[in-house]
Amino acid sequence: MRVAYLGPDGTFTSEAARRAVPGAEGEPLATIPDVVEAVRTGRAPLGIVPIENSIEGSVNLTLDELAFGPVGVSIRGEVTLPIAMHLLVRHGTTLDAVRVVRSQPHALAQCRGWLGRHLPAAERQAATSTAAAAREVAAGDGSVAALGPAVAGERYGLAVLARDVQDHGGNTTRFVLLGTAMAMPTGADKTSLVVFFGEDRPGLLLRVLDEFALRGVNLTKIESRPTKQSLGEYAILIDCAGHVCDARVGEALRSVHRHAAELRVLGSYPRADGLVSVPAAADSDEAYRRAADWYADLLAAVDSPP
Amino acid sequence: MRVAYLGPDGTFTSEAARRAVPGAEGEPLATIPDVVEAVRTGRAPLGIVPIENSIEGSVNLTLDELAFGPVGVSIRGEVTLPIAMHLLVRHGTTLDAVRVVRSQPHALAQCRGWLGRHLPAAERQAATSTAAAAREVAAGDGSVAALGPAVAGERYGLAVLARDVQDHGGNTTRFVLLGTAMAMPTGADKTSLVVFFGEDRPGLLLRVLDEFALRGVNLTKIESRPTKQSLGEYAILIDCAGHVCDARVGEALRSVHRHAAELRVLGSYPRADGLVSVPAAADSDEAYRRAADWYADLLAAVDSPP
Amino acid sequence: MRVAYLGPDGTFTSEAARRAVPGAEGEPLATIPDVVEAVRTGRAPLGIVPIENSIEGSVNLTLDELAFGPVGVSIRGEVTLPIAMHLLVRHGTTLDAVRVVRSQPHALAQCRGWLGRHLPAAERQAATSTAAAAREVAAGDGSVAALGPAVAGERYGLAVLARDVQDHGGNTTRFVLLGTAMAMPTGADKTSLVVFFGEDRPGLLLRVLDEFALRGVNLTKIESRPTKQSLGEYAILIDCAGHVCDARVGEALRSVHRHAAELRVLGSYPRADGLVSVPAAADSDEAYRRAADWYADLLAAVDSPP
Amino acid sequence: MRVAYLGPDGTFTSEAARRAVPGAEGEPLATIPDVVEAVRTGRAPLGIVPIENSIEGSVNLTLDELAFGPVGVSIRGEVTLPIAMHLLVRHGTTLDAVRVVRSQPHALAQCRGWLGRHLPAAERQAATSTAAAAREVAAGDGSVAALGPAVAGERYGLAVLARDVQDHGGNTTRFVLLGTAMAMPTGADKTSLVVFFGEDRPGLLLRVLDEFALRGVNLTKIESRPTKQSLGEYAILIDCAGHVCDARVGEALRSVHRHAAELRVLGSYPRADGLVSVPAAADSDEAYRRAADWYADLLAAVDSPP
Repeated sequence: MRVAYLGPDGTFTSEAARRAVPGAEGEPLATIPDVVEAVRTGRAPLGIVPIENSIEGSVNLTLDELAFGPVGVSIRGEVTLPIAMHLLVRHGTTLDAVRVVRSQPHALAQCRGWLGRHLPAAERQAATSTAAAAREVAAGDGSVAALGPAVAGERYGLAVLARDVQDHGGNTTRFVLLGTAMAMPTGADKTSLVVFFGEDRPGLLLRVLDEFALRGVNLTKIESRPTKQSLGEYAILIDCAGHVCDARVGEALRSVHRHAAELRVLGSYPRADGLVSVPAAADSDEAYRRAADWYADLLAAVDSPP
Repeated sequence: MRVAYLGPDGTFTSEAARRAVPGAEGEPLATIPDVVEAVRTGRAPLGIVPIENSIEGSVNLTLDELAFGPVGVSIRGEVTLPIAMHLLVRHGTTLDAVRVVRSQPHALAQCRGWLGRHLPAAERQAATSTAAAAREVAAGDGSVAALGPAVAGERYGLAVLARDVQDHGGNTTRFVLLGTAMAMPTGADKTSLVVFFGEDRPGLLLRVLDEFALRGVNLTKIESRPTKQSLGEYAILIDCAGHVCDARVGEALRSVHRHAAELRVLGSYPRADGLVSVPAAADSDEAYRRAADWYADLLAAVDSPP
Repeated sequence: MRVAYLGPDGTFTSEAARRAVPGAEGEPLATIPDVVEAVRTGRAPLGIVPIENSIEGSVNLTLDELAFGPVGVSIRGEVTLPIAMHLLVRHGTTLDAVRVVRSQPHALAQCRGWLGRHLPAAERQAATSTAAAAREVAAGDGSVAALGPAVAGERYGLAVLARDVQDHGGNTTRFVLLGTAMAMPTGADKTSLVVFFGEDRPGLLLRVLDEFALRGVNLTKIESRPTKQSLGEYAILIDCAGHVCDARVGEALRSVHRHAAELRVLGSYPRADGLVSVPAAADSDEAYRRAADWYADLLAAVDSPP
Repeated sequence: MRVAYLGPDGTFTSEAARRAVPGAEGEPLATIPDVVEAVRTGRAPLGIVPIENSIEGSVNLTLDELAFGPVGVSIRGEVTLPIAMHLLVRHGTTLDAVRVVRSQPHALAQCRGWLGRHLPAAERQAATSTAAAAREVAAGDGSVAALGPAVAGERYGLAVLARDVQDHGGNTTRFVLLGTAMAMPTGADKTSLVVFFGEDRPGLLLRVLDEFALRGVNLTKIESRPTKQSLGEYAILIDCAGHVCDARVGEALRSVHRHAAELRVLGSYPRADGLVSVPAAADSDEAYRRAADWYADLLAAVDSPP
């Protein structure tokens, strides 16, 4: 089994790929769209990309590729990883020798406080990824440090000069596993979807949320995103508890389908936190079945055409 | 075709029966429960009973018989009649000779103002129906007047001493046509139902109303009724626009079914006012069909068990 | 202290008046409107009328007088009485001598089953009240029986031939105490109100219920009533938990006031069942006070006109 | 008047600062938190920072600084600018001489398609801003190009080798003007706020949206953001039409205040699009005033303590 992932090797994403599909052969690709495209076209059966960081928020490039790109890719799993940033240097470099700190801009931002206290005079330089920064440090002269994960340090033979230098504890990144089909229901599932609002219709957002709430389907995430046309036109990205195969989720989705300009289901998949959705009695599959039977009997009491 | 109705002959109900099923043979019965029972047991294929007056409100006996009595009867039509009350006397009687006014207590109440102005000294006496009052006047000595419809005066050979003596204009009574099956949808339909609340659950009433509102189904009447157990336990009687065969009504009913202790549909039938229900695009049968097709396609993208 | 009530003496209402204001001097009046009018004009400081029976439903005459009559009367208390119907006869009369049963039509209806089993051949005759029926039995020849409360039998010297002959157990009537001011809050209060719908606006009913639900105010009763204009135009009568002085009730009422054609508060008063309303923390008077303080601070951060 | 802004000079933000406060003296600062801090501490009376791009979405650093940083700063205005990206080079450089393209990573991402078609072999290098990239091009050897706005090219004396190279038309950025007080109401206002959810309470999000919807307050933007504790704990950032001084907005805010763990208003300010909020009659300040008067009269009809 091959898994395409956002490379290079030595990033948090490569670690997530290993955890999502243990034993799989990893295939690092240059960009998020490349990974999504490889899965969409069948060149890779599975793919893994970051989708959300507990501090930075959503990875817009992933969201937009899944939400607004061509269809044919489904989220079929998720993995969350704690993110620990370390100050990585060539062996022998000491803190007072560091003149430059390089990393992906988000990583620089997450360590701003620590850098201000310990390396106030060092120049911050942007890199395209934490792994690229590590590689550049390895190729440099010892006055440059990188901010990145342990795996990047190992990959490029660097020393860890300071551990856990991020300003906020509990930093976590969520990655999604992509394929061409959704996973089967497990009872502890999540569904991701995108609702497109054709016109700026007040009340439509509330209705969409209401459709889920009335059926006891909890939303775990909601976010409005521009649809690339002009400021003010939004799509709503929603994560909800449950699987498209659950009756309550299915009815909510069909209701939203009737009202939205477009509805795209990005996938149903087992939750990383394993939280089981136990619906109220009235929202269970069994209650939906009984109601359907009752209604069929009711229709039998209508006059038939002669 | 025979139509059982609340007799005696000469009441507004007998007139409603004639209008509901022109040319039918009318069969007057003594009480509302007798009419309902005759239809339920098949002794009469159709029945007609009053259900609501624009001034007095619901006819509780009819509501309770349909809502809480044995099942097996459906409302399959409705008729509304303007109610004009006249002062009926034996020929030759003049206003100053009237010492007693008899009628069904509701009729007496509806003419209270007129009686206060024109016959302040006359004794009011209760009768079991307006027709019974007219019959008793015909059998009396000329000092008694009845309040009742023109048809009662004709039936018992009385003179109309004063016309339209009711205090409020626009008095109308609604009658329902009963059978054992519901009528087919016409596009201008109404559905009557009863929702039972098992326990005093705050929020359940609101949910029930919400289920209809979210699907664009208008309610034309709502009324809480005691369920004959103890003060404070209620059922809700609802009339809504549309037919049980309409997709939006069907889904609303199934949702209510999942949440209520019990749900009884009293019938779907053509509205007396002929008002056509034109759903919004998102609430049309076509929108429900498209959503069902979309969902079937979606489920096809879920992994199958190996 | 005088209490006007719906007479004559010997009815359930006279018993309710004694319980509502112990030691008061009762003043029986002929009709419900007479009682309401006496309070409104100040001729009687207090009044008591029946408003709802657990089997028959609302007493429309009372509702309409309070909801649609002139303003100036408030409900300031309520009393509930168990209703037990007895078969009352002249001393010495036996069951097989009874040829006629007289009572108020509702009372006849409530004992229909018993009468069908024990007096199938007796003629049913309408009376204007249970007390009037008892008086007529006392003045009659022994072949007539009355259905009524024990107090009516005592008042007119009749014997009880059969006890508790009503078809349904748990029959209870609710009476309201009228005055010109509302009662002070006790913590276990109820508020009665009437919402007028100017036009047939779909969604307005739902909004009204929502305004209460969102603030955690439970509705104990809801009923649509014709407004005496034409079939289909309704007012909604609502009983809710809480007092107009409670912040959550006050805000709900003001919101309804903004949307309804008219809003009439019939009164706030201690509940007969003594059930204390304990609001959620967010709905407490204290939460409203804190929110008001917070908002005042917020407004202070707006630029002032130069 | 001085305006602190996210520098360096030559960025879109410097242009926005000129438009927001014409004639003001601009003071470029190194980071978004620096600008916010300068306003908060009073070192600069006004500040301007980017908050949202039509393609990239929210500027998380700005949102987090305003939403989760110390209080004391208000949004008091907004400006939107169309974003046009140009390929900037030293005079004389031709397209086939370009070996490296530098820019802020978001700018690189927005031009990915164009670069793929016209400079597939050029290396992409990250810079900390579009202006920094332009400065570095000016200091380089002619084989490096920058992606940036026209103003950056002018600032550093570069030539525009290709115009409007962004992949999507209609790219716009929204900037907010910061101060220590909110702007006065103009009738065409917007309010930005942050609602904190103390625990993962299902239904709270829906309630918050409902509080606005019920009062006819339209939401123009909604976004959930992690609160820096752990993945899954969110705050909701909302932009709504109207001003905190509007009665309907004020009541909605007080209601949210009662239910949320915390509520922070970021500011009320004139909308860049000038769209006037015309409330329905029931949601107008006048309707709120009338309801308050009515309620005051109502309370006067409650018994006073003796």
